Amino acid sequence: MQISIIQPITTPVDLDSQELEGLCKNGITCSVVNLHTGPCSVESRTDKAFAIPGMIAAAQREVQNGVDAIVIDCFGDPGLDVLREVVDIPVLGVAQTSMNICASLADTFGVVTILKESIPIITDAVNAYGHKGRFVGCRAIDMRSLEIKGQVNEMTNRLAEQALSLVRDQNAHSIILGCTGFIGCAEEIRKRLELSGFNVPVVDPLPVTVFSAIPLLQMGLKQSRESYPKHKPKEIKGYPEFQ
Amino acid sequence: MQISIIQPITTPVDLDSQELEGLCKNGITCSVVNLHTGPCSVESRTDKAFAIPGMIAAAQREVQNGVDAIVIDCFGDPGLDVLREVVDIPVLGVAQTSMNICASLADTFGVVTILKESIPIITDAVNAYGHKGRFVGCRAIDMRSLEIKGQVNEMTNRLAEQALSLVRDQNAHSIILGCTGFIGCAEEIRKRLELSGFNVPVVDPLPVTVFSAIPLLQMGLKQSRESYPKHKPKEIKGYPEFQ
Amino acid sequence: MQISIIQPITTPVDLDSQELEGLCKNGITCSVVNLHTGPCSVESRTDKAFAIPGMIAAAQREVQNGVDAIVIDCFGDPGLDVLREVVDIPVLGVAQTSMNICASLADTFGVVTILKESIPIITDAVNAYGHKGRFVGCRAIDMRSLEIKGQVNEMTNRLAEQALSLVRDQNAHSIILGCTGFIGCAEEIRKRLELSGFNVPVVDPLPVTVFSAIPLLQMGLKQSRESYPKHKPKEIKGYPEFQ
Amino acid sequence: MQISIIQPITTPVDLDSQELEGLCKNGITCSVVNLHTGPCSVESRTDKAFAIPGMIAAAQREVQNGVDAIVIDCFGDPGLDVLREVVDIPVLGVAQTSMNICASLADTFGVVTILKESIPIITDAVNAYGHKGRFVGCRAIDMRSLEIKGQVNEMTNRLAEQALSLVRDQNAHSIILGCTGFIGCAEEIRKRLELSGFNVPVVDPLPVTVFSAIPLLQMGLKQSRESYPKHKPKEIKGYPEFQ
Amino acid sequence: MQISIIQPITTPVDLDSQELEGLCKNGITCSVVNLHTGPCSVESRTDKAFAIPGMIAAAQREVQNGVDAIVIDCFGDPGLDVLREVVDIPVLGVAQTSMNICASLADTFGVVTILKESIPIITDAVNAYGHKGRFVGCRAIDMRSLEIKGQVNEMTNRLAEQALSLVRDQNAHSIILGCTGFIGCAEEIRKRLELSGFNVPVVDPLPVTVFSAIPLLQMGLKQSRESYPKHKPKEIKGYPEFQ
Amino acid sequence: MQISIIQPITTPVDLDSQELEGLCKNGITCSVVNLHTGPCSVESRTDKAFAIPGMIAAAQREVQNGVDAIVIDCFGDPGLDVLREVVDIPVLGVAQTSMNICASLADTFGVVTILKESIPIITDAVNAYGHKGRFVGCRAIDMRSLEIKGQVNEMTNRLAEQALSLVRDQNAHSIILGCTGFIGCAEEIRKRLELSGFNVPVVDPLPVTVFSAIPLLQMGLKQSRESYPKHKPKEIKGYPEFQ
Repeated sequence: MQISIIQPITTPVDLDSQELEGLCKNGITCSVVNLHTGPCSVESRTDKAFAIPGMIAAAQREVQNGVDAIVIDCFGDPGLDVLREVVDIPVLGVAQTSMNICASLADTFGVVTILKESIPIITDAVNAYGHKGRFVGCRAIDMRSLEIKGQVNEMTNRLAEQALSLVRDQNAHSIILGCTGFIGCAEEIRKRLELSGFNVPVVDPLPVTVFSAIPLLQMGLKQSRESYPKHKPKEIKGYPEFQ
Repeated sequence: MQISIIQPITTPVDLDSQELEGLCKNGITCSVVNLHTGPCSVESRTDKAFAIPGMIAAAQREVQNGVDAIVIDCFGDPGLDVLREVVDIPVLGVAQTSMNICASLADTFGVVTILKESIPIITDAVNAYGHKGRFVGCRAIDMRSLEIKGQVNEMTNRLAEQALSLVRDQNAHSIILGCTGFIGCAEEIRKRLELSGFNVPVVDPLPVTVFSAIPLLQMGLKQSRESYPKHKPKEIKGYPEFQ
Repeated sequence: MQISIIQPITTPVDLDSQELEGLCKNGITCSVVNLHTGPCSVESRTDKAFAIPGMIAAAQREVQNGVDAIVIDCFGDPGLDVLREVVDIPVLGVAQTSMNICASLADTFGVVTILKESIPIITDAVNAYGHKGRFVGCRAIDMRSLEIKGQVNEMTNRLAEQALSLVRDQNAHSIILGCTGFIGCAEEIRKRLELSGFNVPVVDPLPVTVFSAIPLLQMGLKQSRESYPKHKPKEIKGYPEFQ
Repeated sequence: MQISIIQPITTPVDLDSQELEGLCKNGITCSVVNLHTGPCSVESRTDKAFAIPGMIAAAQREVQNGVDAIVIDCFGDPGLDVLREVVDIPVLGVAQTSMNICASLADTFGVVTILKESIPIITDAVNAYGHKGRFVGCRAIDMRSLEIKGQVNEMTNRLAEQALSLVRDQNAHSIILGCTGFIGCAEEIRKRLELSGFNVPVVDPLPVTVFSAIPLLQMGLKQSRESYPKHKPKEIKGYPEFQ
Repeated sequence: MQISIIQPITTPVDLDSQELEGLCKNGITCSVVNLHTGPCSVESRTDKAFAIPGMIAAAQREVQNGVDAIVIDCFGDPGLDVLREVVDIPVLGVAQTSMNICASLADTFGVVTILKESIPIITDAVNAYGHKGRFVGCRAIDMRSLEIKGQVNEMTNRLAEQALSLVRDQNAHSIILGCTGFIGCAEEIRKRLELSGFNVPVVDPLPVTVFSAIPLLQMGLKQSRESYPKHKPKEIKGYPEFQ
Repeated sequence: MQISIIQPITTPVDLDSQELEGLCKNGITCSVVNLHTGPCSVESRTDKAFAIPGMIAAAQREVQNGVDAIVIDCFGDPGLDVLREVVDIPVLGVAQTSMNICASLADTFGVVTILKESIPIITDAVNAYGHKGRFVGCRAIDMRSLEIKGQVNEMTNRLAEQALSLVRDQNAHSIILGCTGFIGCAEEIRKRLELSGFNVPVVDPLPVTVFSAIPLLQMGLKQSRESYPKHKPKEIKGYPEFQ
């Protein structure tokens, strides 16, 4: 099972070799691709809008390369519904997948993310995916997505603090890490919550989504064409990547 | 009050002079603009995605020109949340405005639109705007958006038939015309429904939205920065219009 | 466009000339009328009940006078559904209109009102109009409706304080002034919230509702007879105004 | 336990002696009162509005007479929230009570009522009482409330037909008779549904509500003053009954 | 009317003679039975699961004895839906009945219960019964169900404290005692809340449910067979009580 | 990853070797176990109740055997919440997992199941798992769970017919096979729907759930102890399997 991880940005944020190895298990191999057309980071709805045309091009290239599924590597799930119209293989969003997994593990969930400005994207997703009844809130750690790689300790401390607040004060029964840049620190945060007396799952969105492609691919499942009609290409202007 | 009507397409679909005059009342003047970057028509989520970057550029130009509000001339409300992040003047979507107006006039509403493939865009909007409890369904007349100008009689007949079905069989208490290309035929459809025994409002989305800018502009109201944080420009690649 | 503003009380609460002038724009002229049958103020459901018969009589007189629309000048929206059954012109409630406008501007809203005892009326309205998912709460300033005209500074201070609490602590993304007696102080409260770091719309219900009649009147829209069947007069006893 | 049954009309609709005897069991005695101020029948929101002031007067007289609880004898539940503000004894609405009882007996319910024009009153109630998720629809038999006493056979046939349609086609798991004038025919309708293969409860609203006062009175329960603040009398004009 | 009160435990928790007398009014007589198969107390979903087979056997014996209705004496409503499939007489759950009664008395309710570990059972019930929109939260007093009989003062103090917190801080407009072991202290808690300025109903679940059988039995109402199809016995293994 | 498939019945329903092989991929091995205490089949809530005690015993044995996760092999998800309290490894229900997967693939889903009497179990599950907004309905093929193994052609024909009706008439955008006995026929039904013009996913609940254990096990995720507190064993009577 060849899974394409599309980063919706033009700046490559390398997954390090350990992170990538961690994903290539159970019959999975992964490719990670970036955009030719798009923003340097995704922190707002406007950033998302600038990413999607480049994601369409990237997805079409990856389909040509023979991949079996696409995972969008950004908690804003940019282009999730669009790529589902464009390609004939399963497309997974990390926010949608993480929220659906929490729905099986816990009555409620909270999200910890990077910036206060990113919260409306997450509440949009909660509403669109039908999880409003389970969502207790979102907290930001006030670090930009391109800053966090170099400050893992500070990031982890702030995430643990906000996660504890969601669990203790807001009745969150599970926690979702609301940025794929937080990869790898879920277990540490889970342990700190357990030390505070709360035994709750903490979801690391990118890897859990990659592994969630397995049941779809094994069963031949993909998006419904009644919900996501196949897009018919038409004339577009102003996009060098598509000319 | 100078209102900019942004058509999210590169193909100008002229509002004729009578239609435009009909909008320029009560202190309103209108400008109609098209895109440099974008698709030739909007009938899918993918079309919407290709329209939004060009709409951002158009909106920024219109703000430079001193307009007071922006109305997006497409029932898919493409870019509505994005433009609200980008500009500091009110941005109105015709679908959102029409649905909110129906919420004051009737317990339920149904939508008649162009193509079956466009229905998921409309149900997305119904959900995002919180109108699921009022929405009884959407029916398509199976005509493309660029065809309808030349076939107004056929279009009106099909719209009236689908509208009647929604009112009589689905308990719709009001009807929204789900494409701005249907401009001008609401009253005819309302009369036909009345002849069938149903006295219900039929909403023509573009003009009702233009006039709905008046209460906002008179009262100095615009989008909340808590829901739509101001976008901070960042580096983007692959967009000639922005270089 | 001649709009009748019906005050659901027997005590005339004059809109001052500046306030009235502020409404008579964009082709609107306004008449303000009071009741012959009804209470001296509206602060409870019981007060509302005593107001409605007199409002029916007033509305019928105003229709005879040739007005084009009716606006009910009380945040409890007394008689809104009843008048819609009785007359054949659009009837607008200030609470319903304000809430629908907030639905276009912000994800959530909070309300500031006069008395704790009035809060159940407002939560009834929130539920009836389908806005429960957006409503974060209502706060009272503990001043009676007939007191506030003489204490505008105190009123404004208390409103700003409660509004700030709703925005900062309850996640309100917009504020509605929940009494038409608060007319004219929305901009001041908006500025104070902005000084505290929150850039959110503050809705002044009476004027925004008067201006919201424009899109309805321009488009010939009024209440659906499927939701509001036309009332057929029948014998009533005990109402001198109707004998 | 002395229960006052308030008929919100000026025309006495006598409960016959058998009907009244059927209510006076288990320690209950009943008084039935009519209005001095009000309409001759209640079939619209406007009728309800004209009834409520007279109901307040009647309720106050009945409290003076020492009754222990008030039941409103009309499926529109006119004045339910108002009387709860006015008196200090429990006030029961037959629609609210019937819907709450169905919530314990079945997943869903449908309502059969008199006139198509009365349906919006019932859907208002369904929404206000929080039963939207259980309500499958309302059907009218097209007979006026003052006609049905003389045409019990015809009424029963039409009710059974509409009830069967709700159960068979709309998935109603229980039926509420949506007019207190239908008293006494629930068992007949239940039997007919059973003959068609559907074993479902059919609720007769007035008697089930009278008996539902017993648990409240035995336990000393009445309306919450947080939801229904006590009304403080104020000056009203135009109501001879209150002068 | 002979009502069987089934305690879903093998340890008899005697209702004292005063408590039992309090239930035997208005034509009611009660029998109280325990289980042969089951747990010693019910504080978790697992305890509920071990109780239900024994409850089926007890219910079948009680039906043989000629009882008219069954009340399940545990706030977890164990076996409520199962017994409704098994027997042909009404089966009442104390949690469901209490919540439906609050729905008639107040806009919102909160629950006070025994242990933090029991809260998920109560939130499951709130969701299953459709009361999520009214429920403000549940607080535990941290006493086990078998401890409370001997510590009524301490129990009452803790209940009053938690109830006040729900009313004052969480906007609860009514309180439900979330354990049938709390029988008899509702009025004391109501008085203490009133002393703190909150005039709200406090529901004692077991007696209010026993009295709520009266309207059902008087009207011949019981569970719908569309929602609760009659169970057809089949072969089971490992249950000595059923061999 | 060793996964225990617990069949909640005492009658072994062998998965054939091809079916079992189909599950043992991607690092998974499976064991299939039956009950000592329980019913011969599960078609009602009462059957579920008789199954759960035996499932607890079976789960405890399987944990002793060192399995990594438990899958409950019945679309009623019997004991799902109970086993999550009892064991410290992930427990997956096939109905919950299938519905969560559909939530990622399609806007709506319908279910096809065995008997009309089983439908309430499925609607209970839809409500408990928060999928009411997506669920369009459930259709039964009127075959008992122990009959279907021998009549695969007839079963497939009936399933395809009911699935088509849900998709074409009820707007289902995906289909869930609502009985684990239907294993292996999803692709055939999907093809028939495609021939009728509907390209929608058809979910085979048991294998998709087994594969869905992979993301949980790879990420160390299991049920939240805030939602599913650990059960503390207590004295029970009448269960030979536990003595």
